[in-house]
Amino acid sequence: MNTEEVAKKLVELCQKGAYEEAVKSLYGKDIVSVEPREMGGMPAEMTGLDAVSKKTQWWIQNHEIHSSKATGPFVARDTFVVRFDIDVTDKSSGQRMQASEVGIYKVEDGKVVREEFLPMV
Amino acid sequence: MNTEEVAKKLVELCQKGAYEEAVKSLYGKDIVSVEPREMGGMPAEMTGLDAVSKKTQWWIQNHEIHSSKATGPFVARDTFVVRFDIDVTDKSSGQRMQASEVGIYKVEDGKVVREEFLPMV
Repeated sequence: MNTEEVAKKLVELCQKGAYEEAVKSLYGKDIVSVEPREMGGMPAEMTGLDAVSKKTQWWIQNHEIHSSKATGPFVARDTFVVRFDIDVTDKSSGQRMQASEVGIYKVEDGKVVREEFLPMV
Repeated sequence: MNTEEVAKKLVELCQKGAYEEAVKSLYGKDIVSVEPREMGGMPAEMTGLDAVSKKTQWWIQNHEIHSSKATGPFVARDTFVVRFDIDVTDKSSGQRMQASEVGIYKVEDGKVVREEFLPMV
């Protein structure tokens, strides 16, 4: 798949909440994933499909998702951007929050090799 | 200014249509600017404040801007993203178009050193 095909598939899967399937089917084994900050005891930057799959599972297990919207993709060359608008409750704190962020994705050989998330400020 | 301050200033200036002021006040002299494709006889990638200022002037002169919205910024580390939604008429062709794109910006020493635009597909 080219960048646009990978990007559209990722938006489609995220839009229906299939985050784990997105990682498994679209990410390269040496994926680098960069969050704005550490969370759940995990460092902000992690490498490898196992680590990123575990982070995704942790996130799903620790949040009640009230709504989630993926907008895009925006695509050029090896790069695409997706905007996420979520409304979730952190199960441990009980705190509900609405947040918007974008992910910047790099594609090589038909796989996502880097993702970086930036919160709206 | 740090990344977030540069980012907020850029959104503020773009939101009021002050594109040339944004370039002059926020961009580094060796700015690298990457468009999805060549336009107006200019290559997709250009370097330097003069070239980018001229591109900005060309764009303003060759489009009638009906509306323009800048959303964001989304910020982490040295990077920020802004979403643009525009409604413009190309003066040469008379064609009116609505388009959405994001810009990915890199900041070094308080100046934008790279911008890359990705259209929504």
